[in-house]
Amino acid sequence: MSNLLRSWVQAANERGCPFPLNNLPYGVFDDGSGARCGVAIGDRILDVTATRWKSVAVQLFDHPSWNAFMAEGPDVWAAFRAELQDVLSEGSGREDQLVLVPMERARLLMPFAVCEYTDFYASRHHATNVGTMFRGAENALPPNWLHMPIGYNGRASSVVISGTDIRRPRGQIWQPDPGRPVLAPSSRFDFELELGAVVGQSSSRPLSVQDAHDMIFGYVLLNDWSARDLQAWEYQPLGPFQSKATATTVSPWIVPSAALQPFAAEMPEREVDLLDHLRDCGPMLYDIELEVGLKPGSGPETIVTRTNYRHMYYSAAQQLAHHSSSGCPMRVGDLLGSGTISGPKRQNCGSMLELSWGGKEPLSIAGGARSFLEDGDCVSLYGQAVGEDYVIGFGACKGRILPAD
Amino acid sequence: MSNLLRSWVQAANERGCPFPLNNLPYGVFDDGSGARCGVAIGDRILDVTATRWKSVAVQLFDHPSWNAFMAEGPDVWAAFRAELQDVLSEGSGREDQLVLVPMERARLLMPFAVCEYTDFYASRHHATNVGTMFRGAENALPPNWLHMPIGYNGRASSVVISGTDIRRPRGQIWQPDPGRPVLAPSSRFDFELELGAVVGQSSSRPLSVQDAHDMIFGYVLLNDWSARDLQAWEYQPLGPFQSKATATTVSPWIVPSAALQPFAAEMPEREVDLLDHLRDCGPMLYDIELEVGLKPGSGPETIVTRTNYRHMYYSAAQQLAHHSSSGCPMRVGDLLGSGTISGPKRQNCGSMLELSWGGKEPLSIAGGARSFLEDGDCVSLYGQAVGEDYVIGFGACKGRILPAD
Repeated sequence: MSNLLRSWVQAANERGCPFPLNNLPYGVFDDGSGARCGVAIGDRILDVTATRWKSVAVQLFDHPSWNAFMAEGPDVWAAFRAELQDVLSEGSGREDQLVLVPMERARLLMPFAVCEYTDFYASRHHATNVGTMFRGAENALPPNWLHMPIGYNGRASSVVISGTDIRRPRGQIWQPDPGRPVLAPSSRFDFELELGAVVGQSSSRPLSVQDAHDMIFGYVLLNDWSARDLQAWEYQPLGPFQSKATATTVSPWIVPSAALQPFAAEMPEREVDLLDHLRDCGPMLYDIELEVGLKPGSGPETIVTRTNYRHMYYSAAQQLAHHSSSGCPMRVGDLLGSGTISGPKRQNCGSMLELSWGGKEPLSIAGGARSFLEDGDCVSLYGQAVGEDYVIGFGACKGRILPAD
Repeated sequence: MSNLLRSWVQAANERGCPFPLNNLPYGVFDDGSGARCGVAIGDRILDVTATRWKSVAVQLFDHPSWNAFMAEGPDVWAAFRAELQDVLSEGSGREDQLVLVPMERARLLMPFAVCEYTDFYASRHHATNVGTMFRGAENALPPNWLHMPIGYNGRASSVVISGTDIRRPRGQIWQPDPGRPVLAPSSRFDFELELGAVVGQSSSRPLSVQDAHDMIFGYVLLNDWSARDLQAWEYQPLGPFQSKATATTVSPWIVPSAALQPFAAEMPEREVDLLDHLRDCGPMLYDIELEVGLKPGSGPETIVTRTNYRHMYYSAAQQLAHHSSSGCPMRVGDLLGSGTISGPKRQNCGSMLELSWGGKEPLSIAGGARSFLEDGDCVSLYGQAVGEDYVIGFGACKGRILPAD
């Protein structure tokens, strides 16, 4: 485990600060002077458009998105990160040459243009829980599950930044009595706690797991809002569609893969060997502590789940390798949702579906109980990798439920 | 049925010409002087970047794609189409002011940037055939099928223009003996005959069927290449993924919705009423004759299927209305595949899966037999709407199979 790197931005050195010099996540902010690319450090945002850099052309930041920078590739990512750590380090003497904006004065925007969005189903605990509810414990895991990271294509147009209100969707819901569907607001609207991997390079060839790993620019927290009643009616035979298309919320800072390397976690034991093209090649999960807070319209927030990204069965690199295996072209800005991250126990589950066991065992929260989300509820995902003397934070991923139109 | 509009481009007036003045489809071409937007007329392409227009700013064509034009909306589509028909009409006296390129000298490129790609499953014959093969005749149609146009998100990055060679994919295929998957080239690689609807407007609200209809800019032929062996193993529980991600080929000309209006066809009888938001509001299918040609590496082409788009159960407008029903934002350049278009008889089926009944009854073609596609096979989709004295053609949608790497 590496140690805190000290910065001349004092807040970055404080214990528990989510944005020490070891992190340096990429975002887009607007302090009233227009949207620009920035990097979080302590309680400030470094405006990267206001400085000439040695390692990159400042024109890469002409558009308020990190896509052009990502497209430059891993060597540039590493060089720019080293330059940032250099100029922001304690004693660099560069205080007067950099523009820092107080974070509290800035509105955070989407840090990248989402090219395409794919969601996976890669937590064994989650797949087992959901499978048990729908098919019984004997048939919980589908036959393919231990052999490949099951995924489906989501809707990039629905990805929104933390803080965006989420309108409860309407959709077709099956009514057993009188045996027909109605169009109605979802009454089983849910969150899904996930980590999103941001693909930073393009490729139109099947990728090895190692090459895929090297193409991942960074990670965000991701909430894949899900209407369970719509999903149950629509998903056979072609998978989830409108139940997952209302919105997917991401946290505002792309945490660089490099910042997470000290927290790399071993892959799980394999009950069956993976095929060569998906085989583990080193620790590619991360020890990231995750929480979900649920705050009703009035009343305090309750933390309803605590889990960890190291519980996953497949890494983002394995997902990306599988995604490319048929020759599917991958592009800069593709977003891969990890799938719901659930741990071994009920209180470690990453969705209301599991926490309330299909709505049958409502969850107690401060001021009431919940089977699924109610109007006015605010759901916040939190994540941090905890080192000995510093943490790598993500910034919250929040969304509040508005009533259906 | 309207009559042929005569043009001073003589070839456009010839019987059977796919591109009369009534059509005027939108494409992108390169005759060696760079990629540009163009409109097909007879045996020529009108270079729209070389003329000042009354109805549109020529800057809309700065990029070789029709997306910026589409974003202007239906009133501009109609005004520009009227202006084109005016200047290209017999006796307009505008011959000297327009730049026409011989079609044979031009390479055709993607006519628009695909924003996101969605594929549907909306032919009752196709769904019944596939359902019968997989679940038996009693359970052929899934319970939701008569109530909504089932769809899934595809992969926009995989959409290619007609003429692009298609590399046979590898993927995970289940081997019953010894009971494990292998990574191998697909041996059940297939085409799917579809029509693609190009969404020409953005919206982030649930759409009515009529509003959705008005947002559809035009149509292309679409071949959704499908690896049936990969699909069978991967598709439970979240739908097709890598089996459909190798490539989707589209024809090079976007045929305007306006050109197809004279061929509007009635919606089918409804066994169960559709919910209000999906209800039919006038004829929104089209009488488009469709064929698929299969040409082995050596030997002549055999037409293996003949069908018609009027056989569909759901229109593109109903698909788009359903797609937006949960609040899913739709954007300019979204592409909606109709789903495989099969007619009532075996020889009207839009996939090898159906034509060879799951590979059990190989199809005779000139020079051999086929269960699925073989390396070197060239698959061509053809489409035309046939009026009394003119046709609206699409231009072929072709792809040749290369062996797996």
